[in-house]
Amino acid sequence: MPDLIGYLGPAGTYTEQAALLYAPDAVLEPYPTISAVGSAVAEDELDSGVVPIENSLEGSVTFTLDLLIAQSGLSIRNEIVIPIDHYLVAPPGVSAETVEVIYSHPQALAQCRDYLGENFPTVAREASLSTVAAVIDMQASRVPAAAICPQRATEIYDVQILAQSIQDNSANQTRFVALAHEDHPPTGHDRTSICFAFAVDRPGSLYRAIGEFAERNINLVKIESRPTKQELGRYIFLIDCDGHREEPEIEAALQGLREFADVFKILGSYPHWEPPGR
Amino acid sequence: MPDLIGYLGPAGTYTEQAALLYAPDAVLEPYPTISAVGSAVAEDELDSGVVPIENSLEGSVTFTLDLLIAQSGLSIRNEIVIPIDHYLVAPPGVSAETVEVIYSHPQALAQCRDYLGENFPTVAREASLSTVAAVIDMQASRVPAAAICPQRATEIYDVQILAQSIQDNSANQTRFVALAHEDHPPTGHDRTSICFAFAVDRPGSLYRAIGEFAERNINLVKIESRPTKQELGRYIFLIDCDGHREEPEIEAALQGLREFADVFKILGSYPHWEPPGR
Repeated sequence: MPDLIGYLGPAGTYTEQAALLYAPDAVLEPYPTISAVGSAVAEDELDSGVVPIENSLEGSVTFTLDLLIAQSGLSIRNEIVIPIDHYLVAPPGVSAETVEVIYSHPQALAQCRDYLGENFPTVAREASLSTVAAVIDMQASRVPAAAICPQRATEIYDVQILAQSIQDNSANQTRFVALAHEDHPPTGHDRTSICFAFAVDRPGSLYRAIGEFAERNINLVKIESRPTKQELGRYIFLIDCDGHREEPEIEAALQGLREFADVFKILGSYPHWEPPGR
Repeated sequence: MPDLIGYLGPAGTYTEQAALLYAPDAVLEPYPTISAVGSAVAEDELDSGVVPIENSLEGSVTFTLDLLIAQSGLSIRNEIVIPIDHYLVAPPGVSAETVEVIYSHPQALAQCRDYLGENFPTVAREASLSTVAAVIDMQASRVPAAAICPQRATEIYDVQILAQSIQDNSANQTRFVALAHEDHPPTGHDRTSICFAFAVDRPGSLYRAIGEFAERNINLVKIESRPTKQELGRYIFLIDCDGHREEPEIEAALQGLREFADVFKILGSYPHWEPPGR
């Protein structure tokens, strides 16, 4: 039986593109929110679930970080990285010159700011809840409208493509994670994500935490703070490091940190993404 | 002559509330974007500019972090913290029972998810570009509509208040910064924000950086990574620490870090916020 993979929908999003790349033979099922994907994985309704975690321009997808911190029964099993390539589309028969409003998610509008400023300086921009909702908002518009959406949406909806690759910065990539009950066995080129927190704000706690990795010459890829949501100025730290949690040096660093942190959780070890065909 | 203070507009936002609290006697001028506020301060059009930098539930406002990293001639001179208190409003004469759609910024909709689920389970939610744009979208709606907005917006627009304090988590606060050419002289209860980066990813660089503070017993309040926007997986680190950059221990730590980081910038030293009347 093919795997059942959930993803942050609707169909046509960059997340669906990532899920198709991750599991081309699986049955894919869209979910309305990141936390709905997480719950469905935790409750065993899915083999795994694909959600965005980080964009090279915008930074972390904080909903996903907060889900990983809070939800039990959930590990990162894989990562998937895809380029973000924005398309400008309109309903069939609507020409670029007549467009009076352009819909998209505020992040996509922001990522195409230079392009829109040059080509559509006087056209209104309207926020949609996603880059696919933008296509639906465009279709429902009473005035001639366009939308910024992923390539995948142009395959699903009846639209004409006015322009492609309209993002201002070509180094625009998004990293997705496949969530599952269990993380991934070691492959030799892995990464590990953890989170931890201290009950009391003491100078040096974070230094000691990072020291567990530095002393063992383990490379830290990323460090991030997330609010505890109890008080402004109190944080949970997230670290991504090179290596798998079953490798002896990594295991020792994690054990060292676990002993003095007040909150400690391994979010998963998983193979570092390699583009297909490499 | 009163100070001229810019803020992220439009009038009626939480940022205007913060600017009013920060400078009650100043002339306030709304700007359309965070970067427009930054440019106006850098180009000397304003005495200072107020923008949001961090929310206790959502985390950092990444636009503001990226502005501080990239824009020269800009320092953090003050911080202001205000509670976020969401109001549900409707046009005069529209009753809660007849509302068919609720507008707000996606973050405000998310922060009132439980309240909306209980009280308006079947009502559509629509994204607006800000909590004030939501009021305007509501007024233009063809069907009976409501909006989630700040208290300040209820003073400016002709609306009736259906409910107040509808946010799910009462520990919802936003921290704003007042940007100016110069940061603040020492007051004895200050904080300092810096950013730094390393050209090469070497195990231990970040450890050594944090060590400059830990060795001197300086408390790190926050650490954050922002993407360099050149390549996924390369970061600029931001640190907030207790103390003023002119205090000898802080000065020594910053000097130590400056010597081995490839990018280093002091974003400012400023008094730690105390609510008025304390």
